[in-house]
Amino acid sequence: MIEKQRPFGELITYDEALSTLLKEIDPIERKEIVPLNDAFERILASDAESDMFVPPFDRAAMDGFAVKAEDTFEAGKFDPTELKAVGKLHAGDSPDKKLRKGECIQIATGAPMPEGADAVVKVEVTEKENEMVSIYQPVHPGENVSPKGEDIEKGETVLKKDIFLTSSRIGALAAMGKEKIEVYEKPKIGIIPTGDEVVPVGKKLEPGQIYDVNSHTLTSVVNKNGCIPFSGEVVHDSIEGLKEGIEKEIDEMDMILFSGGSSVGDKDVLIDALDSIGEVIFHGIKLKPGKPTLFGKVEGISVIGMPGYPTSCLNTAQQLIKPALRKLSRLPEPPERRTKAVLQKRITSSLGRQQYMTVRLDNGKAQPVYKQSGAITSMAQADGYFEIPENKELVEKGEKISVILF
Amino acid sequence: MIEKQRPFGELITYDEALSTLLKEIDPIERKEIVPLNDAFERILASDAESDMFVPPFDRAAMDGFAVKAEDTFEAGKFDPTELKAVGKLHAGDSPDKKLRKGECIQIATGAPMPEGADAVVKVEVTEKENEMVSIYQPVHPGENVSPKGEDIEKGETVLKKDIFLTSSRIGALAAMGKEKIEVYEKPKIGIIPTGDEVVPVGKKLEPGQIYDVNSHTLTSVVNKNGCIPFSGEVVHDSIEGLKEGIEKEIDEMDMILFSGGSSVGDKDVLIDALDSIGEVIFHGIKLKPGKPTLFGKVEGISVIGMPGYPTSCLNTAQQLIKPALRKLSRLPEPPERRTKAVLQKRITSSLGRQQYMTVRLDNGKAQPVYKQSGAITSMAQADGYFEIPENKELVEKGEKISVILF
Repeated sequence: MIEKQRPFGELITYDEALSTLLKEIDPIERKEIVPLNDAFERILASDAESDMFVPPFDRAAMDGFAVKAEDTFEAGKFDPTELKAVGKLHAGDSPDKKLRKGECIQIATGAPMPEGADAVVKVEVTEKENEMVSIYQPVHPGENVSPKGEDIEKGETVLKKDIFLTSSRIGALAAMGKEKIEVYEKPKIGIIPTGDEVVPVGKKLEPGQIYDVNSHTLTSVVNKNGCIPFSGEVVHDSIEGLKEGIEKEIDEMDMILFSGGSSVGDKDVLIDALDSIGEVIFHGIKLKPGKPTLFGKVEGISVIGMPGYPTSCLNTAQQLIKPALRKLSRLPEPPERRTKAVLQKRITSSLGRQQYMTVRLDNGKAQPVYKQSGAITSMAQADGYFEIPENKELVEKGEKISVILF
Repeated sequence: MIEKQRPFGELITYDEALSTLLKEIDPIERKEIVPLNDAFERILASDAESDMFVPPFDRAAMDGFAVKAEDTFEAGKFDPTELKAVGKLHAGDSPDKKLRKGECIQIATGAPMPEGADAVVKVEVTEKENEMVSIYQPVHPGENVSPKGEDIEKGETVLKKDIFLTSSRIGALAAMGKEKIEVYEKPKIGIIPTGDEVVPVGKKLEPGQIYDVNSHTLTSVVNKNGCIPFSGEVVHDSIEGLKEGIEKEIDEMDMILFSGGSSVGDKDVLIDALDSIGEVIFHGIKLKPGKPTLFGKVEGISVIGMPGYPTSCLNTAQQLIKPALRKLSRLPEPPERRTKAVLQKRITSSLGRQQYMTVRLDNGKAQPVYKQSGAITSMAQADGYFEIPENKELVEKGEKISVILF
């Protein structure tokens, strides 16, 4: 059977592959309620409406004296107005005294304004002697006061559903007293390694065996992109084994990633398994590393066959699976660190194939660290990578390139 | 007592504050062992040396036939060499047959090379009939073979300690079969809200009270920057209360963040508490929002008094605490998303003060969303912010600004 070779059909471009994949993925609809702190960097699943005013009461915005503004209109630098201090209010106090004409109340920033007062005179322009306070500057009504609801009105929709919860949005939810937040669930991603030679890390290797690398790199990519990884056991390279692998997970998962089994060797039978219980959508991408990538659907769930070589698998995960996971989990585009560097070696690429080349950076110089395509160290020891677009055959030594940092 | 005002000493610049703070912080030294997948985005705490070869054996890099290269030297497109197929090797098989002159063995990518073979002829340039295989192209010794140790040598230091564990580095550790990884512990950060008016989210507000916003925003910033937040109960605005708060946590934590209590009001007594049991290093920064920030040390542990206003607290956390947490946790500089936009409104700033202004983005236009300094919605409803440096007084409407996205 080894002689059986099933060449790829026509390879599609990376852009086609990505748009085809994204078109087939629907953002998650399941919701869950989580404690406020756990909602950080999740996606809000229902509008956050405030059922209170923030601040909940008129409060002093400065340390000083709460007054009736009109009592101060005559005050001047050389001709102070005198008011009688009739109490003190600290933040957290509840005012019980009503201010009358000719009176003032000492007040701290954040303390609630007493009834009858409509402004705060800053302590810097006052002088207090016993019970009498000299006011050296007039204030207008509302001056140095944060009115109730200034930040958030009762009934206001402060955050719309589907928004990404940054630190400040967590803060806004806290200000409204929201203890529990409705967010979208994190999608569940099944990760199934295949290959008769593949053994879980931690077991002893027998001759001919290698460790499962891809489950671990895929787990990190899934975690990083708002989803929950579920690592399965190694599945054997047979149509039956793979079908079983899919059927076991299809009801639980929102997406299934196989690693290995997606190439054209006789044991690469994922395409047959997919064909028999679902549909194959594409097989083979003009992407290097990452060509033997397979995409299909079973019962509406995306099943993706990732290349078996660790670097190919991880590159495909970064370029293709990451955007798919983010559409599924509703996360916004992630930040990216780029830097310019001077390429230290001429690199040739194939026309019609999007290529990614790992580099090590040293003082603005980019040294390619590509080994062979199975070599995980070519990525692990690199600082980042650059893209060679489909229509470019050559990048010259000395050319300035834009490096995406890992 | 409200009349007591203790003005800031000389305010220091943001750059001075940051460098002073960073100088006082030592990266964490405590280590722990975690399962491989949990080491993702942690910092490796000891060199990762391989105690195996990767790949662990010579293996086929192509599907085809394992041969003695010298048997193929005469092969040509019109004059094939015939070899006798004496077996098959799949990935995961352990070869038990030694190849002799004139023989070949069918072999799949990833399968171990049989003894006696030194090259693989690609299946595409062969033809098989029964037991005889015609070879139409010569191969040189080593062709289409990944030799043992090609990626990683036994004894090789693959990753040096103190490196940030990206996906590909997790992959390299997996390839070496490392099940458990020694990483640095995540530093523990105590977060203590202060203020007699501050009430935990989830409790009912009494008159004069507001919800604790800062514990939640600080928790998110601490989590995001490689540390573990420990939220304490609200501490009352008294020297004794604050001293107790510090003393309770000082043995357990690597840093303590107070929110509120760091300004100059009579209840802002954190400076007195710090003074009495440790030392005050600076108080007051030329930063807007974020001026009333206090930094001191107690028993070698950094204690930071953050401004009480939510936006001031969060801005200070992003500008000052984030770099400090990353030095403590050893995380590299985080990626950042920036975009250019045209400012829609003239903004004035104060000379000698680094200012941050939140904006909402719409189609390349940046609209300032600053409300008053207590307003958490001014950040929550913004898309990002831009910096107005110390030496700039004015940013004109229509100016192109660089917006850092949240």
